[in-house]
Amino acid sequence: MSLFEQNLERNQANSAPLTPITFLRRAAAVYPDKTAVIHGPRRFTYRDLHARSCRLASALARRGIGRGDTVAIMAPNTPAMLEAHYGVPMAGAVLNPLNIRLDPAAIAFILEHGGAKVLLTDREFSEVVRAALNRVENAPLIVDIDDPLAESGALIGELEYEALLAEGDPLADSGEPGDEWQSISLLYTSGTTGSPKGVVYHHRGAYLNAFGNMITFGLGRDAVYLWTLPMFHCNGWTFTWAVTAACATHVCLRKVEPAPVFALIEEHRVTHMCGAPIVLNMLANAPQEAKVRFDHRVEIATGGAAPPSAVIEAMENDGFRVTHLYGLTECYGPAAVCDWQPGWEDLEPKARAGKLARQGVRYLTLEEIMVADPESAAELPWDGASMGEIMLRGNTVMKGYLKNPSATAAAFAGGWFRTGDLAVRHPDGYIEIKDRSKDVIISGGETISSLEVEEALYRHPKVLEAAVVAKPDEKWGESPCAFVTLKDGQNASAAEIIAFCRDMIAHYKVPRTVVFGPLPKTSTGKIQKFVLRERAAGLQGMTGALEA
Amino acid sequence: MSLFEQNLERNQANSAPLTPITFLRRAAAVYPDKTAVIHGPRRFTYRDLHARSCRLASALARRGIGRGDTVAIMAPNTPAMLEAHYGVPMAGAVLNPLNIRLDPAAIAFILEHGGAKVLLTDREFSEVVRAALNRVENAPLIVDIDDPLAESGALIGELEYEALLAEGDPLADSGEPGDEWQSISLLYTSGTTGSPKGVVYHHRGAYLNAFGNMITFGLGRDAVYLWTLPMFHCNGWTFTWAVTAACATHVCLRKVEPAPVFALIEEHRVTHMCGAPIVLNMLANAPQEAKVRFDHRVEIATGGAAPPSAVIEAMENDGFRVTHLYGLTECYGPAAVCDWQPGWEDLEPKARAGKLARQGVRYLTLEEIMVADPESAAELPWDGASMGEIMLRGNTVMKGYLKNPSATAAAFAGGWFRTGDLAVRHPDGYIEIKDRSKDVIISGGETISSLEVEEALYRHPKVLEAAVVAKPDEKWGESPCAFVTLKDGQNASAAEIIAFCRDMIAHYKVPRTVVFGPLPKTSTGKIQKFVLRERAAGLQGMTGALEA
Repeated sequence: MSLFEQNLERNQANSAPLTPITFLRRAAAVYPDKTAVIHGPRRFTYRDLHARSCRLASALARRGIGRGDTVAIMAPNTPAMLEAHYGVPMAGAVLNPLNIRLDPAAIAFILEHGGAKVLLTDREFSEVVRAALNRVENAPLIVDIDDPLAESGALIGELEYEALLAEGDPLADSGEPGDEWQSISLLYTSGTTGSPKGVVYHHRGAYLNAFGNMITFGLGRDAVYLWTLPMFHCNGWTFTWAVTAACATHVCLRKVEPAPVFALIEEHRVTHMCGAPIVLNMLANAPQEAKVRFDHRVEIATGGAAPPSAVIEAMENDGFRVTHLYGLTECYGPAAVCDWQPGWEDLEPKARAGKLARQGVRYLTLEEIMVADPESAAELPWDGASMGEIMLRGNTVMKGYLKNPSATAAAFAGGWFRTGDLAVRHPDGYIEIKDRSKDVIISGGETISSLEVEEALYRHPKVLEAAVVAKPDEKWGESPCAFVTLKDGQNASAAEIIAFCRDMIAHYKVPRTVVFGPLPKTSTGKIQKFVLRERAAGLQGMTGALEA
Repeated sequence: MSLFEQNLERNQANSAPLTPITFLRRAAAVYPDKTAVIHGPRRFTYRDLHARSCRLASALARRGIGRGDTVAIMAPNTPAMLEAHYGVPMAGAVLNPLNIRLDPAAIAFILEHGGAKVLLTDREFSEVVRAALNRVENAPLIVDIDDPLAESGALIGELEYEALLAEGDPLADSGEPGDEWQSISLLYTSGTTGSPKGVVYHHRGAYLNAFGNMITFGLGRDAVYLWTLPMFHCNGWTFTWAVTAACATHVCLRKVEPAPVFALIEEHRVTHMCGAPIVLNMLANAPQEAKVRFDHRVEIATGGAAPPSAVIEAMENDGFRVTHLYGLTECYGPAAVCDWQPGWEDLEPKARAGKLARQGVRYLTLEEIMVADPESAAELPWDGASMGEIMLRGNTVMKGYLKNPSATAAAFAGGWFRTGDLAVRHPDGYIEIKDRSKDVIISGGETISSLEVEEALYRHPKVLEAAVVAKPDEKWGESPCAFVTLKDGQNASAAEIIAFCRDMIAHYKVPRTVVFGPLPKTSTGKIQKFVLRERAAGLQGMTGALEA
């Protein structure tokens, strides 16, 4: 054995489990009087946030909640939601944030599958939660969150959240976690098909991804972070922890609407925010009267899908700088970033937006990313043309799916996490998604990226939203079918849309059918392509313009 | 067993050892053409730095160097030194940077004790290295670094560094480390007394402390880092790795002198640099003609000892912002930072400098810091008065001392790393060093902090440097004895210095003896108080002004 491995073991002084809890402990010690959380007229300092999290942890512990127990929460972006991100792990338990847009059946499934022993639930969602509980055999302890800014909803639980906090000790900061591989969070994929899967995170990954966010996004002590991204979504892409690590300020927000978002940016001098492309779309297309002008630049990170470059351009014009991230629930949110390259500042806005719409390169805290053959997992050339599956490796990849060893094994086949996203890698190493494997359209043997067709549609000045799916076609196998929502007060014909696309993309890629109307969305705001595929299949034989 | 620990094990996809090597791999992939290293007229891109490090690693491997082997390096802040920080760990080996100011006996001791199999040595130090090798039984393979900017020195080795690199493969990036607890670096304490001790770092700590540096110091992609801090000193406080993690630019520097430092700041628009207080002192007192004016602000981090507040003030006036760090070799360099608090900007410069001269609060990547009773390790009150020992805990504390289990056990007694520094903790949680345990002066039963007396001396406009030690005193037990270097062309009497001190500090703390002349320093530029104590003891009975 090497001399370097003798009498040089881990001990209490030189090793500690990595955990995001340490961020709150430090912020409360160093900046006790600083505003940690803003929620309407309310303010919580870091001393408050720590004390309230300790109270929550010790109250849970006194009620028998400990390591390996699940505490679910159904809440929008409120102080209680943030406190749960610290108090629950401090009790050694696992936080299970529920998507507030789910229906009773899905909530019941998750509560049963995740084995929640406690459910903290914001009064706004009492109705759907009550309906869910009717379907659950072993109901958890129900704790109402009576948020003063909630507009409606009954109290349906055994006690109220503030009463639970009162049971706890504000100074009782536990020694959790005992191990950095211990589970911290359970997040169900919104799953466009099949039962949701429960993604499990550990303390180590949460800690590291928070650092990745801070470094990538330039989150410092003076940052003011507006919560336009749901905290239930990958724990707010781990910004729940990153903002605290920076000792910055969280600005809560129950609901994302353009007018309050612009007003809060101006009032609190917000510096950073995140949101799905749909949020950027909403802000870019907000009525002029809602767009309060601000005189500083706001960093906005987006991800989940490629934001259409027209939207990136519009956001830049409104004073935002867009950072494009890429990730999935399975990798703590962000796993890649479209890092800025010298020279991009000299590009025309449209060309720059094209660069920025790519998914980019690995996060500093992720170990490896590649585009590979889905069968062999062999990496493909960086030629901007070879399409393969994005695969990831590193400490910010989930532990696996709860109680689902076969799905876990499939996701990790060959020692890589399989994202299911199809992409090319450009010669500069930047990855660009071409499609979800299941969203590709194969027409006459040619592969068509639905994203490329959508990108063309978004360039049309009257188009607010667009989604393209495969429609069964007797002659071609499949053909592209576009579902389009026009901007308020606009009218367009299918012929006009089709003609516009013919100018922009190869003819075989142009939609043969255009359906106008609102688009169906998942609870996280993703367009439900499987619904559209069913609709498209029902249109068999029809082409041209249709009304949804 | 909890459901959260079943079928959710570590695997190749979801876990990877933390290592700073990943920073270079990423920088080379994302910014291959960016300037990574500037050295005089030479430029290396990140592609170059990675390829050269891979060459070094594979050349070492081909010569049989692998896991647990020691590779020593004797070099100033040059590209080869930086490459060794990647190439040696990539080979699985342990880097042992030697302090270039050591004498042959100390170098020989370290080469023997650390078991170096290879020594990379800059030609400037050939003479001292040759003398050291005469004392070594099992001489390592000697590789000359023929740096074009070296002014002198013979080539004394078996081959030259570039020839070694030529043996290696620029594409052979190994899979090292196998384990994040694997040793990465071996650093001998400069030890004012006794044999040097070999501090061992691991990959995990190096990775984490680099993140701590990036976050604390705001190191981003656009940073330009000037190497005024020796890389042999705690691996440049782990900035060797942090700057690369940021994909920023390293500016090498063989020797710290005011004129080139100011010129490089202006030429390369340096944004960040570090240095011992003595470097700040040198820059603040540089002749006006050396002080090139620059129109941006330069972040400078200092540590090791408290910089006199007069020096902080002077640096601010010259366009620097001073961040005060605290740390030791045993904790990867920085372990605490005097974090800026809201409101400090409104303080008078002198009051602000007083705040900034404190050692501050724990680094984000350190787990805990406290001021405790050295006997019981019980934490002392945060009252600004109770003096105790600074103790640390966390992942950025060394593995231990090489081949020295008793010193390791003593350092970690009670589950804390004992720093040997005496401090108080203020009510705001900020730690302020009062002295090294062995530097305290006990006079008439009263404890006198030598730092407090020095702080008063530094305020005297004619004083360049000052150090205060205990002088045996028949009546008082000990009395404070000041050793003072005056600024160029200045004259002062002991009476004048003493009178000045009487206006600033309690009378019993005022030096009873003042000795004028240059101060003896260790190889890292620390004032050698043990030499001064010996001198003071030799002055028995004498008081007033003396000439060294």
